[in-house]
Amino acid sequence: MAEIGEVEDHLADERRKAEFDVSAMKVVWAGSRHELEITDRMARIVASDPVFRKDNRAMLSRKELFKNSLKKAAHAWRRIIELRLTEEEASKFRSSVDEACYPDLHWGMFVPAIKGQGTDEQQKKWLPLAKKLQIIGCYAQTELGHGSNVQGLETTATFDPETDEFVIHSPTLSSSKWWPGGLGKASTHAVVYAHLITNGEDHGIHGFIVQLRSLDDHSPLPGITVGDIGTKFGNGAYNSMDNGVLQFDHVRIPRDQMLMRISQVTRDGKYLVSDVPRQLVYGTMVFVRQTIVQDASIALSRAVCIAVRYSSVRRQFGSQNGGPESQVIDYKTQQSRLFPLLASAYAFRFVGEWLKWLYTDVTQRLQANDFSTLPEAHACTAGLKSLTTSVTSDGIEECRKLCGGHGYLCSSGLPELFAVYVPACTYEGDNNVMLLQVARFLLKTVSSLASGHPPVGTASYFGRAEHLMQCSCEVRTADDWLKPSVILEAFEARAARMVIACAKNVSKTLVLEEGFSEFSIDLVEAAVAHCQLIVVSKFIEKLQQDIPGSGVKEALQVLCSVYALSLLHKHTGDFLSTGCINPKQASLANEQLRSLYAQVRPNAVALVDSFNYTDYYLNSALGRYDGNVYPTLYEAAWKDPLNDSVVPDGYHEYIRPLLKQQVTSRAARL
Amino acid sequence: MAEIGEVEDHLADERRKAEFDVSAMKVVWAGSRHELEITDRMARIVASDPVFRKDNRAMLSRKELFKNSLKKAAHAWRRIIELRLTEEEASKFRSSVDEACYPDLHWGMFVPAIKGQGTDEQQKKWLPLAKKLQIIGCYAQTELGHGSNVQGLETTATFDPETDEFVIHSPTLSSSKWWPGGLGKASTHAVVYAHLITNGEDHGIHGFIVQLRSLDDHSPLPGITVGDIGTKFGNGAYNSMDNGVLQFDHVRIPRDQMLMRISQVTRDGKYLVSDVPRQLVYGTMVFVRQTIVQDASIALSRAVCIAVRYSSVRRQFGSQNGGPESQVIDYKTQQSRLFPLLASAYAFRFVGEWLKWLYTDVTQRLQANDFSTLPEAHACTAGLKSLTTSVTSDGIEECRKLCGGHGYLCSSGLPELFAVYVPACTYEGDNNVMLLQVARFLLKTVSSLASGHPPVGTASYFGRAEHLMQCSCEVRTADDWLKPSVILEAFEARAARMVIACAKNVSKTLVLEEGFSEFSIDLVEAAVAHCQLIVVSKFIEKLQQDIPGSGVKEALQVLCSVYALSLLHKHTGDFLSTGCINPKQASLANEQLRSLYAQVRPNAVALVDSFNYTDYYLNSALGRYDGNVYPTLYEAAWKDPLNDSVVPDGYHEYIRPLLKQQVTSRAARL
Repeated sequence: MAEIGEVEDHLADERRKAEFDVSAMKVVWAGSRHELEITDRMARIVASDPVFRKDNRAMLSRKELFKNSLKKAAHAWRRIIELRLTEEEASKFRSSVDEACYPDLHWGMFVPAIKGQGTDEQQKKWLPLAKKLQIIGCYAQTELGHGSNVQGLETTATFDPETDEFVIHSPTLSSSKWWPGGLGKASTHAVVYAHLITNGEDHGIHGFIVQLRSLDDHSPLPGITVGDIGTKFGNGAYNSMDNGVLQFDHVRIPRDQMLMRISQVTRDGKYLVSDVPRQLVYGTMVFVRQTIVQDASIALSRAVCIAVRYSSVRRQFGSQNGGPESQVIDYKTQQSRLFPLLASAYAFRFVGEWLKWLYTDVTQRLQANDFSTLPEAHACTAGLKSLTTSVTSDGIEECRKLCGGHGYLCSSGLPELFAVYVPACTYEGDNNVMLLQVARFLLKTVSSLASGHPPVGTASYFGRAEHLMQCSCEVRTADDWLKPSVILEAFEARAARMVIACAKNVSKTLVLEEGFSEFSIDLVEAAVAHCQLIVVSKFIEKLQQDIPGSGVKEALQVLCSVYALSLLHKHTGDFLSTGCINPKQASLANEQLRSLYAQVRPNAVALVDSFNYTDYYLNSALGRYDGNVYPTLYEAAWKDPLNDSVVPDGYHEYIRPLLKQQVTSRAARL
Repeated sequence: MAEIGEVEDHLADERRKAEFDVSAMKVVWAGSRHELEITDRMARIVASDPVFRKDNRAMLSRKELFKNSLKKAAHAWRRIIELRLTEEEASKFRSSVDEACYPDLHWGMFVPAIKGQGTDEQQKKWLPLAKKLQIIGCYAQTELGHGSNVQGLETTATFDPETDEFVIHSPTLSSSKWWPGGLGKASTHAVVYAHLITNGEDHGIHGFIVQLRSLDDHSPLPGITVGDIGTKFGNGAYNSMDNGVLQFDHVRIPRDQMLMRISQVTRDGKYLVSDVPRQLVYGTMVFVRQTIVQDASIALSRAVCIAVRYSSVRRQFGSQNGGPESQVIDYKTQQSRLFPLLASAYAFRFVGEWLKWLYTDVTQRLQANDFSTLPEAHACTAGLKSLTTSVTSDGIEECRKLCGGHGYLCSSGLPELFAVYVPACTYEGDNNVMLLQVARFLLKTVSSLASGHPPVGTASYFGRAEHLMQCSCEVRTADDWLKPSVILEAFEARAARMVIACAKNVSKTLVLEEGFSEFSIDLVEAAVAHCQLIVVSKFIEKLQQDIPGSGVKEALQVLCSVYALSLLHKHTGDFLSTGCINPKQASLANEQLRSLYAQVRPNAVALVDSFNYTDYYLNSALGRYDGNVYPTLYEAAWKDPLNDSVVPDGYHEYIRPLLKQQVTSRAARL
């Protein structure tokens, strides 16, 4: 994004160093020319519209912030209509606005829930209302006392055959719905998850469409208590969202507001299960989690873009003969923290792209009643959700630290990016719970090897378990570590050996569940090894494709090696203790890594330019395209509310009496 | 701290499980009965005073927050006088107030700078003013473009012999003083660091006392531009502090306001160096950094206290036969993340205690002109500053994640604790720069081995380098890992081998500086290994002392083993690749670790009760002493400003028009 007109480009030298075609890399990052064109066009429209201004966001009070985000949502909706945007364009437009608000849940959870779980008739009734925003919906699942364990929810929906209604009720404080985004203040409706009870029998958790607020004046309907759950982590950040609390006091809804695609309650209270396969629910999970992986690559790349640009502008130490100090990005220790994150951003982008394909594949199979790949696809997306969101959260904070003290200022953009991102580690499946699910899948894969079930997809390397258990790494020189086949086998052997060692330990215990619990720490580490292998292998696969553009593939090959070898270095203990590599080979990998960092160095700024982010989107004094950092920081400072007056409010009451030694007198009583 | 009266203690079962005497452990944690008594008394006075209320801090605007913190500072000052507190009590009182404000810098930096660098005459003039708060001072060193590298500062102080004054000047934008706490709005004076120039000659960086604001009306003096640098990371958090920006336009101060203890400028502009040893500056660094290590143990223990209590209250999954779900703290994966942090909090507490002794020792030696231990003490505190602040920052965030979604709410107390703590990784020596300094010290230690200089203090294990390079670990059973001598030798061998390997690599390069740069990544890892060894060895030494109280020493022994073995697990790659242990021994260490976690489990809540924190101090719905978590979260939610009205501000302008489909009409224009 060239915001540069007549002003000086402080990063021009860096851009001249680049050894590849940035415009071609932009296409690779975006996924296609088409994607690049739309993303770029939407980003520019949003960036140039003053209503979407966000540089003051960190300084707004909660109420101002929320009101402003309602304003932006309404304006976005209007602009989308005025510009006659397609669904694809509208979605990019909304993400360019880059502010959490009720439409995220309305479009991302409420509408899909009705689509996925509603009958044709229900869809016909509710979807047009939702799609025109005549109603605003949210997704009310988690409760104050219940998060990941959906079966533990306490809200009840009891069928009353007398009136043909369900009675929705919150029996305890801990059953209060808690966290749903858009619930606190904006939504008129919710899909509420509750235990379905008919004739005194509990049929488990089901979804119900419940109106919460009057469509006339927005006041809560009788029996409904609803509000916001309070301020969340960070300045601005997720506080633009009204995550809510909701309690029901025997709220009645008509029977036809239970989402009945998969199971029904009849007029006389009978519970019926349709022949629609329940596995469809997992298809939705695969969808949601693959979008989370894509979001991870975006969030991480934003942070890396800021840190790379500022590290190139910033100078510290190393001045010789009175010349300028060294650019911080030239320090090896800076490179060793920054470049693996740059490589991870690309790696996550490519594995996210592949997950899109996986979702399409799973959907087609489900439609053909083929459930054979579903467990593998489910484990794969759960694991990658966990891996990429954890690395991204930590990575954003690492980038903030890599910017030194100034990264701590909101004007750097990094504090808000961190605070708004970290919930991704918890929502849609807590990352630790996800890894335990992957571990279960891996144990099942191993145990079914004996029964002749060939493992599929990302688990297919277990088909070569015998070889992987005894193979030895062939690396003799540092350059051997550049061979994709060598990397792949090392990562496969490590994952296979860790998983199989766990399986053996677990199988020794009498009760499987106890064994699973006893070795859960090792199992989680094995699951991480498996997930890292997936990312490495998909990066390698990507590079086996045709990638046009001068120097583009070469630059990506370096990043792919950086990604794999920095992981290998971080987890040397795994590789050594499973005997996949020896200490000499570990040392050669480090040697290669040092040389790879030197190869990334001249391309670093161009590699982050390729993300094609506008200055508006980055919202960072440190990450500006033109590198004009210090005047920007300086100007931003004076806009702080505390600088509204030279002498601060409070001086006369609380500073002057001290200086004048009047503090202990009665007159100075506060 | 027993806040429990007639209310139910939800953690009573946990407290009954404890296998040690909590009141005796409180003494161990506090350091002595005397310390415990004072800390406890001051904490209770502050907690019961409504002026010090902080539960609404995360919701205040920047201006409200700042004004409120001025109020607290004035009130604290008044109470300290009224209660006739000793200096020791006053200091504990201020830390109990737990809000960053200008007195931190006034007492912590401005006063010590005058004490350390001022002549007797200067001290006599300025200290009484400062000690009565007739002036408020800050410490103006870092600049917009210059952080860790003090020599790179650009501000100048040019002596004008005509008027016998210094002219303080900011020649560029990047020379603006930037970050000093208390500067933005509160301070009347500053110690300003600038290049001293006399007769056209630059004598390097020196300190000057400069008045910034009028003592009559607090307005900035002529030539001075001063303000706040803007909002920082997090809600509440460090935003109560007015970190400032300051520019000088040829500001004149009398010659006697240069701090002249170490060097002087005479009336005719001659530059003289006194015979006061310059090494005294390093003594101050040792002092400041040892307090940072102590603060680390406090911050980490607060987070761990919240996470342990909430993990004991919170239940999830594992319900059998309709009974309650399992306590989250019973999951091994939760224990494996939480208990090493609990152990680290105790480890940092003990190493901090030892550093207090080290500072006393160094001070006494300096007074006797013995500089022999100074480099070692300096490296040791630099390294421990880096290690403990990094682990603490990451540990607070890990504790937050261990609390699941609710940890993301400000009412959990964890977001603010994180945001207010993280600058410790950057201030007073960036953590990465600190590790490079340790690395330099270690290289020097190795190179002087040959010349017969015996290494001292925490580096003395290099005296046994020959043995450590070839010794082999004797562990044959998991229980062997409980022997302190075994642990110690493994950690010593690992550190020695890593350092010596680096030294060899560096020595192969032609230019030492290039070698240092080329292998800086490995050097930093070696420095971390050295610092971890220090913490492990001081924990072991602590346990060799007499520790009274039933079960107290036993509980600490378990924590010590958890600390060491969890580090060994995390860094297995180091231990294996240097051949200090073999894969079988690594696996036995893991086995022992699993068993240790089971031993920590019944003591977990009692171990955090021993920190003796009030509910006021923790400021966390999740960390309450009585475990009454959910009603507290619920009540906190309703206090959010967004809940002031049921229908949110903005409904009529930005929600209703959408619902009523009036959004594209001109009337709805925003």
